[in-house]
Amino acid sequence: MKQLASYVSGAWVEGTGGARPLVNPSTEEVIAETSTDGVDFAGALEFARERGGQALRALTFAERGALLARMADVMHGAREELIALAIENGGNTRGDAKFDIDGASATLSAYAAIGEELGATQVLLDGDPVQVGRTARYEGMHIRVPRRGVAVHINAFNFPAWGLGEKAATALLAGMPVVTKPATATALVAHRLMQLWVEADILPAGALSLVTGGAGDLLSHLGGQDVLAFTGSSDTAKTLRALECVTARSVHVNIEADSLNAAVLGADVSPGSEAWQLFVADVTRDITQKAGQKCTAIRRVLVPAERLDEVAEALSERLTGTVVGDPSDKSVRMGPLSTADQLRDVRAGVARLAEQTEAVCGGLGEVSAVGVADGRGFFVGPMLRLARDARAATAVHEHEVFGPVATLLPYSGDADEAAELVALGGGGLVASAYSNDRALARALVLGLAPFHGRVYLGSDKMAAQSMGPGTVLASLLHGGPGRAGGGEELGGLRGMGLYQQRTAVQGDKGLLKALIG
Amino acid sequence: MKQLASYVSGAWVEGTGGARPLVNPSTEEVIAETSTDGVDFAGALEFARERGGQALRALTFAERGALLARMADVMHGAREELIALAIENGGNTRGDAKFDIDGASATLSAYAAIGEELGATQVLLDGDPVQVGRTARYEGMHIRVPRRGVAVHINAFNFPAWGLGEKAATALLAGMPVVTKPATATALVAHRLMQLWVEADILPAGALSLVTGGAGDLLSHLGGQDVLAFTGSSDTAKTLRALECVTARSVHVNIEADSLNAAVLGADVSPGSEAWQLFVADVTRDITQKAGQKCTAIRRVLVPAERLDEVAEALSERLTGTVVGDPSDKSVRMGPLSTADQLRDVRAGVARLAEQTEAVCGGLGEVSAVGVADGRGFFVGPMLRLARDARAATAVHEHEVFGPVATLLPYSGDADEAAELVALGGGGLVASAYSNDRALARALVLGLAPFHGRVYLGSDKMAAQSMGPGTVLASLLHGGPGRAGGGEELGGLRGMGLYQQRTAVQGDKGLLKALIG
Repeated sequence: MKQLASYVSGAWVEGTGGARPLVNPSTEEVIAETSTDGVDFAGALEFARERGGQALRALTFAERGALLARMADVMHGAREELIALAIENGGNTRGDAKFDIDGASATLSAYAAIGEELGATQVLLDGDPVQVGRTARYEGMHIRVPRRGVAVHINAFNFPAWGLGEKAATALLAGMPVVTKPATATALVAHRLMQLWVEADILPAGALSLVTGGAGDLLSHLGGQDVLAFTGSSDTAKTLRALECVTARSVHVNIEADSLNAAVLGADVSPGSEAWQLFVADVTRDITQKAGQKCTAIRRVLVPAERLDEVAEALSERLTGTVVGDPSDKSVRMGPLSTADQLRDVRAGVARLAEQTEAVCGGLGEVSAVGVADGRGFFVGPMLRLARDARAATAVHEHEVFGPVATLLPYSGDADEAAELVALGGGGLVASAYSNDRALARALVLGLAPFHGRVYLGSDKMAAQSMGPGTVLASLLHGGPGRAGGGEELGGLRGMGLYQQRTAVQGDKGLLKALIG
Repeated sequence: MKQLASYVSGAWVEGTGGARPLVNPSTEEVIAETSTDGVDFAGALEFARERGGQALRALTFAERGALLARMADVMHGAREELIALAIENGGNTRGDAKFDIDGASATLSAYAAIGEELGATQVLLDGDPVQVGRTARYEGMHIRVPRRGVAVHINAFNFPAWGLGEKAATALLAGMPVVTKPATATALVAHRLMQLWVEADILPAGALSLVTGGAGDLLSHLGGQDVLAFTGSSDTAKTLRALECVTARSVHVNIEADSLNAAVLGADVSPGSEAWQLFVADVTRDITQKAGQKCTAIRRVLVPAERLDEVAEALSERLTGTVVGDPSDKSVRMGPLSTADQLRDVRAGVARLAEQTEAVCGGLGEVSAVGVADGRGFFVGPMLRLARDARAATAVHEHEVFGPVATLLPYSGDADEAAELVALGGGGLVASAYSNDRALARALVLGLAPFHGRVYLGSDKMAAQSMGPGTVLASLLHGGPGRAGGGEELGGLRGMGLYQQRTAVQGDKGLLKALIG
């Protein structure tokens, strides 16, 4: 049995017992196991803070960016191997795996480019200096400097590469050491990535550590210069927020949690137009890609009532043809859910939706999976459901089913009504609106914006080059208010703010000038 | 007996019982009482969100700014009346009262000016647009829009005017309605301010509400579009952070809590220089102004060992001459602490310091107060203490005594050692460094920055126009990491971020253009 070690305090360390299994979700075969029992987490954090932090802070942004570029290169060089692991351990199709792995290397590269652009400097200026006295001689300005602690990253099971890569890229470029913990169930990709980076000897000692397995007492050692960034369920988020280190010691926390992302078809979009095709393609992709296990996936589809039948037909046609099964079979277009727990949760969630919705296609997700022994694997088929009374179907707005299912919700075509219905989701990561009408697009975007970290506006003119609302970009913020956790990641320099102290400095202009550069 | 009502849901409402007293801290006479028993807080929040929020969002930044300007004008017109209330209820000297009241109107005016500058617009652009597709046609940008909830402000007893004014100015300009709660013990000034603003009929209904007395179930009704901004003790901050609305519903929280602010005298500063005089004046002011009850007050004074005697002598000379007593007596330069609880806490805190420090002047704060009956009032005298082993005196770095006391800490003159000693405070609001040496100033500022929200650099060239590190400016951030709560207020546009959702928007360039303006 393959044993996954953790990489802490500059060395690979295996736990002493209580191993947890990693499973192939298509075959339910155990493929590896891991444990963190006995790992010295306090020591690991201190090593990261002292050794890693000091080393990173001694580098310029350009130098840190160069490290990220090498990480991306090494990753890209091992792309096929990583894809194979994602298929085996994550239930990913080849396309799903590429989405995760290429997303990670693209984000590392994007932050490498930001580092290069920031150049040979270590202190960032935030905004313009201002006069704070009677004369221009007495000045105030804001600078950003790396926090002196360690950033702990707790990632979700669905993006073992991208989750690691995007959080680590932001923190490392900002000058903070990272301890990253992938979800145990799908840790194979993250573990291999770490091996590759360690073998290539890219980063200074302590700059990046990996914990595969339980977090033990890791978080209890965090303090006011440390950061905790979490992606996962709002239940776990609630537990993390209530930790003593957060409530009493002001650990800086970023949460990316549940989200009932909505797509709104504008009343002006008619069947056959490019915007219509984009809308259908985006919704279909978000239901099937990674078997719907994307935090940004569209769960609610608002459609003008008079278009309901046409939309239902177009989507059903696409979804019905989806081949589900073991993704190591090349004909397969949608793999299994990643874990037995996910299967249980999705089935329960669909049952909850079924109380207030009717099936448009895919029933309750019953499926005959290709390439697997009967009854094996964590499979469900793609589902499209319909709530004829959009407002009354409370479960659709409140319960995120993390699988291949979306629900159609008819509305009048009025932008305010659409925004109000979407807001019933209590805050989300991304909403998409499809319209070519300038006034309607404006009303939709501004109505949706307060409730989301990102709004995607689909239209004829950008349709040919869009990757859909579900694709997170390094240059745009990722996060959202309320149910989505209230966090902010990425967005270029914006995401680095979590890892930096923003400090006002006031004094004689001549002395302040010496601080920058 | 004067009864203070709350102003909620567009009307003045008196509580039904359980009144709490407001006391003159010089005479211990009860001067008013207040209760919030029976006040419908859920209704008050909903009224603010619906009526106030909608009205504010309908205004442009310029229009909101004009409201703030009128608030400042009305306030300034009632300056003498407000000063009298601050002397009576806060134990403020006339100078202390002006500091609080003029600080409030200056901040309102500063945000009024920001509103005017932002002009006739409602959506703020955050940074520059970026290309997100293959061609320049597909673009992404970030906008800031008002959150759709209500901002609850819980202020500290020491700045009833400024605390209200600075938080309200930021939120109202951002477009969020406010429910503000002054500390009950010193609520007289805030209450009168609210009366003045209501009488002048400045704000739309629901834009600003006032709660005088206990918060009851106020906070339990907050959700993911709401904001909670708190200034006060880290114990209360811990309780607030653990509230269900925060952990489960992602209420946006800003905390400004304890801070052991430090002043560091640079090794290059010699007695008699302008920087030296500034340093002595700043430390003296921070010990005596508002009887040391300033969250930004200097508590730890780091002095090169060879300058210790000279500094002790210069400060003792200033402090010993301070006339303490009832601030309604014009000869008085320092008033009482604001409450009996403060007196108890300060005495206990000084006793704790005394275990690890020796008295330089002022003993344990024994004082004979001018103009009061013997034994009445919450008086202590100004104290300067000394810890000969700066590192070993843990209480000095860990326990904020919120009164007129500071401790001298000798150090070698090395910038790194100074930064390390200051960092023992676990994060603070402001640190000050005094130096005219470019390299030393840089080392001090960059060493202190990660642990503070603001660093003040005192030097010969700005000495004549400095108001000291204790003065919070609207244009510079106020807040700090760790023990100080990890928050950010003010700093011009920066402080408005708490009240705005920052949202990435991506789509066709032409359609995005229509969003702004």
